[in-house]
Parts: sequence; C-alpha cells; structure tokens
Amino acid sequence: MITTDILIIGAGPTGLFAVFEAGLLKLKCHIIDALPQPGGQLTELYPKKPIFDIPGYPSVLAGDLVDNLMEQIKQFQPGFTLNEKAETIEKLEDGTFIVTTHKGTKHHAKAVAIAGGLGSFEPRKPLIEGIEAYEENGVEYFVKNPEQFRDKRIVIAGGGDSALDWSIFLANVASEVTLVHRRNEFRGALDSVEKVTELKHQGKINLVTPAEITNVFGDGKVEALELDIDGEKSILETDYFIPLFGLTPKLGAIANWGLEIEKNAIKVNNALDYQTNIEGIYAIGDINTYPGKLKLILCGFHEATLMCQSVYNRLNPGKKYVLKYTTVSGVDGFDGTRKEAEKQVVKAIE
Amino acid sequence: MITTDILIIGAGPTGLFAVFEAGLLKLKCHIIDALPQPGGQLTELYPKKPIFDIPGYPSVLAGDLVDNLMEQIKQFQPGFTLNEKAETIEKLEDGTFIVTTHKGTKHHAKAVAIAGGLGSFEPRKPLIEGIEAYEENGVEYFVKNPEQFRDKRIVIAGGGDSALDWSIFLANVASEVTLVHRRNEFRGALDSVEKVTELKHQGKINLVTPAEITNVFGDGKVEALELDIDGEKSILETDYFIPLFGLTPKLGAIANWGLEIEKNAIKVNNALDYQTNIEGIYAIGDINTYPGKLKLILCGFHEATLMCQSVYNRLNPGKKYVLKYTTVSGVDGFDGTRKEAEKQVVKAIE
Repeated sequence: MITTDILIIGAGPTGLFAVFEAGLLKLKCHIIDALPQPGGQLTELYPKKPIFDIPGYPSVLAGDLVDNLMEQIKQFQPGFTLNEKAETIEKLEDGTFIVTTHKGTKHHAKAVAIAGGLGSFEPRKPLIEGIEAYEENGVEYFVKNPEQFRDKRIVIAGGGDSALDWSIFLANVASEVTLVHRRNEFRGALDSVEKVTELKHQGKINLVTPAEITNVFGDGKVEALELDIDGEKSILETDYFIPLFGLTPKLGAIANWGLEIEKNAIKVNNALDYQTNIEGIYAIGDINTYPGKLKLILCGFHEATLMCQSVYNRLNPGKKYVLKYTTVSGVDGFDGTRKEAEKQVVKAIE
Repeated sequence: MITTDILIIGAGPTGLFAVFEAGLLKLKCHIIDALPQPGGQLTELYPKKPIFDIPGYPSVLAGDLVDNLMEQIKQFQPGFTLNEKAETIEKLEDGTFIVTTHKGTKHHAKAVAIAGGLGSFEPRKPLIEGIEAYEENGVEYFVKNPEQFRDKRIVIAGGGDSALDWSIFLANVASEVTLVHRRNEFRGALDSVEKVTELKHQGKINLVTPAEITNVFGDGKVEALELDIDGEKSILETDYFIPLFGLTPKLGAIANWGLEIEKNAIKVNNALDYQTNIEGIYAIGDINTYPGKLKLILCGFHEATLMCQSVYNRLNPGKKYVLKYTTVSGVDGFDGTRKEAEKQVVKAIE
C-alpha cells in the first residue's frame, strides 16, 4: 500500500504544480497517471509546440514547461504510479481514502485531488473485429518501450505526427518498418514528412498508401495482417501491429465515483477550494467545471494552490495558517535541500 | 482624454498579465501606476530577489519576471500613465468610467480593474516639521531621474538596500554624496555594503553614522540640513535631501470609491469574475479579498484572466465565446505581429 497526504490523479501541469504548493505546506504527494510519463497531454500530444499564455513566458515549448515543473517539484519528492488508471475509490471511516488502479495498486491518502485533464487518454482503435484478443500480444497502441521492438518486424498505421515520428525512430531499432496510411497525404511537421521520405528512399521504411489494415491473424499473438490496397487484399507478415490513430480523452472509471458530473467535467465549489460534492475529494484543472470556468493551464495552477490550502486546513483544524512568501522564507525540500534568496547582511561600514 | 477598453490600476505582475489576456480577446488596456516604472513592488522593492513559486520557474528573479511579462504583452501595446495616482472615479450613464489621477490626467474606459497590490507605495517620511514645503523642492523620496542630481550635492538618509544602492549609483553622478544613517550598521546585500565601503575609502561617499537629519533649511528650496551626531548639531549644506526609509502601501483614494472594503482589501465575487460591488469595476491580485484568498502572484494571474473574460462578456452580451488555445490559434498582436506554432503540412510522400 502506497501512503501519502494528497493523492493526485493526473500528472499534467496542474497535478505537477500541486506537488509544489503541497510541499510548501509540508504535505507529501503521490501521482497516478495512465500515461507512461509525467506531463499529460503536453508530453503525449504536443511536446514540441509553443504555448504563449503561460504567465511570464512569452513562449515556452510544452515539453520544456513540463521539464521545468518537474525540476520545481523535485525537492518535494513526489511518488508516481505511471501506466495505471485510477479505478476505484473507497472512503474510510476516518475520512481518508483508498484508491486502487486497474492493475490493483492501492494508495492510501488523506485527500484526493483529481487533476485528470480531459480524462485519461484512450487510443482510437481500428475497426477490426477481435482485435482486443491481440492487445498487448502484438497489438500496441502506445510505444512505451522502444526496445521491445528491437530487431522485430513492425507495421505502423496512421497518418499524423505520432505515426511519422515513431516510424522514423523505430527505423533504426526494428528489423523492418512498414508504414500504412489510408491516404497518400500525411499531416505532420514538415521535417518529419521529409525524414520519412528520405528513409523510404533508403529502403528503411516500407510505405504502403493508400491502404488499410483490415484484419489480424495469429495463434495467441500477432503473426500477420490483412492489407487492403484499393480493395485488393494481401497478407503481410509481422511481429507487431502499432495503430497510431490518435487519442481520445475519457473520464473513465472516475465517472462512477459518485461525483457530480456536468458535461464530462466534475462540478466543484469554486467559491472556496475546488472541492467536489464528496468532502476530501477535489477536482482541479481542465477536469473541473464551475461558472466562468476556463480550461487554461494557468487556472489549474491557481486551483491547485487553493486546493492545497484547503487540505492543509482540513488536516490541521483550528491551526491558524500564515502565508509565507518563498522570496522571504525560502523553500525547504523533503530531501533536505533548501532554496533561498541571498541573505542580507547587517554590517557596519568602517 | 486617454480612452481604452480596460483601465488597469497598478502595473504589478497581475496588472501586466491582464493586458495579455485582454489582448487575446481584442480588448485594449491602459495602466496607471504611482511608481515611475512598471513592475510594482517586484521592481521597486526586490528586483534582484528570486521567487520560487511562479509555476514553471524553479527560480526567477523578480525583475526578470517583470521583464518577461513586459515582453509577453508587448504586442498588445498597453498604454501607461506612470508616476500618477488614480484619484477619482466617475461612472457615466452608459456604464463606462472616467478615472482622473492626482495630476489631473483623465482616462475613459469601458471597465476598470484595480490591480493595486497592497496599495500605492507611499514613502516613509522623516519626522521633520515643515518638510512638506520642501517636497519636490529638494526633498525627494524616490530617485525618478538620476540625471536630476548630476553635479549636485546630495544627502541620502537610510540604512537599507535603497540607501546603499542609490549612494553607489549616484557617487558617479552627483558632485558630492553624503550618506547618513542613525546606526553604524547597514542592512543590505553583501556586495552593496562592500561597494559603499570602497567608495568611502576613495572619498566618493561621505559616511556619517550614527547620525540623523533633524531639520531642513532653505528659501523655497533645500539649501542646508541640520545634522545631529550624538546630540551635537551641525549644519550641512546641500542641494538635495533624499530620505530612503522604505515604502508603506496605502489604499489611498481608492478607499473612497464606494467599494466594499474589508481589512484594507476590496471584496470581490470570487465565485464568478472578481467583480466588486460596483458593476464594471473589478479587483484582482493582492488588493482583493474573498474566502480562501491567498496573496500570491499566481492567483493574480488567474483572477486577471477571469476578469478579462467577464469584461468581454459584458461588452459583447449574447455573443457566445469559444476559448481558443494559443498553441492552436496563435496570438495576433495589435501591432500586426503574430506568434504561432510551426504549421503542420499535409503532404504526400512520393
């Protein structure tokens, strides 16, 4: 059982920053995320794209913002349960919670902050009957560990940045890369398209367009695919089939936790602390809704901060909290490190 | 008469960032501030100190944060009325406002956002009877334009960073710099104290401690000061007297605008848009109060953003607003510039 003060569900920018604000209040955080790495959609969907509305950053790449947040929270030593989805929640008699993931990992926390963004990202799946049986047996919707494909034959399907970028990357890992797309045109960064063209001419990527994968065969695991080129069917032998058709966010199991939901978002009390209808469970960032709500990262930062204060007050009833400024008081990490402004001296001038 | 969409009172980080969010909504902003430069207390009180709780910045110097915000809002061409205090407000029949400063500058705006921090910074004055008559006639509480002191004799009083730093700076501008402090010990950055020591030994700064200035003489303007060294009085001829005893924030004239005030802060509706009890007047950042309020810069950013949305809705009744993400839609400046992510291409691979 993992134990923590605040269990945060979602490792996007809002969830990550909550670790910092909690740390200032000496509260420990643990984060669950369905994706294999922190950063949420910033890392998974647009790491190389600039964001222009983070206050104080005329422009920042989404991936850099995540790196900076990870650096900022490092000294508060957050725990991570990655690649797992929060599935069930149980409120104990003492007001604490146990949250269990779909893989059975249990977390015990004094408060829960849902920072799940638009929900957990589910891959768009190809319309192939019986494909579920091959999932994690040769059909992969995410590239979690590229080494898995070392010296294997792989077929990637899709026409966007993910399909292009993974084809390029895996061209030097897999023994054979086939890229299948239902159109001749790809949509992606210009340099990715050019790189794939180059690798195709070098014989490192087999390009098959316009075409579709229409069936999967194999005994317990993927051995071959049915390829449809303009109505003409053929068989393509392979070890892996990686359909990269994009991700759709799903609220998922959280929808069944008894929280008030409105248009796929969790209703919170924005007049105080972004708490949900269940005491001790908060929702912050894009996943919550309230009058005037804007789904902006900077709003998530504010909501995370007020949430932490509320948790502090809940855990320390009657204790008067005095806000300390980091510039004045410095920041004490759980790892013993300290960040502080250069001290002023009091000194006579002789 | 200066005309604008949103008149912002206070050029601290919250007021500055409001310009950006307003700009995204095609609303123009003008900012009034009592200080001679933008940045509020970050620039005036602690430009060289690091802040650790700006989201995405493990550490940022206060002055750099202001520079970054100025860069971020540049393309929305905010107007500035600096060195002036907002004094009176009049609400016209059409719901717009006229705000007049203590120097008589008039501003006409569709909405007013008070982002005045802890209030306008008033200098702590020495307890010298009749000193008011010499203010701006040789007694200066701010160094607004160092050139004013070129080849003049100046006396600086104070024992903190401002007194030290201006003594150092003006040692190469004024013909004679005398630094008077009531103790032998100064409190400031180590390198400032060391620099003053050095300049003293070079004869560029006359240091008089422990001592106090107890009177001001002159015909219409400062000509001499009374210096008290351990009870012994003497006369010190000078052109300027610059007491730098620190600043205290005062709500000032805004306290008489009919706004609901609680403990020196303006009450706002935090459940919606940070509007005050007067429709069309908002209060954002450290100057407002509501249940759970935290006086943090990051909270001001959020409040500024929701304020801008509310102004937009007020000025465009019935128009449905669809939030656009800067990463997707780019940012169009009022100066014709455009910031945007690199475009994706749609391209066949031959």
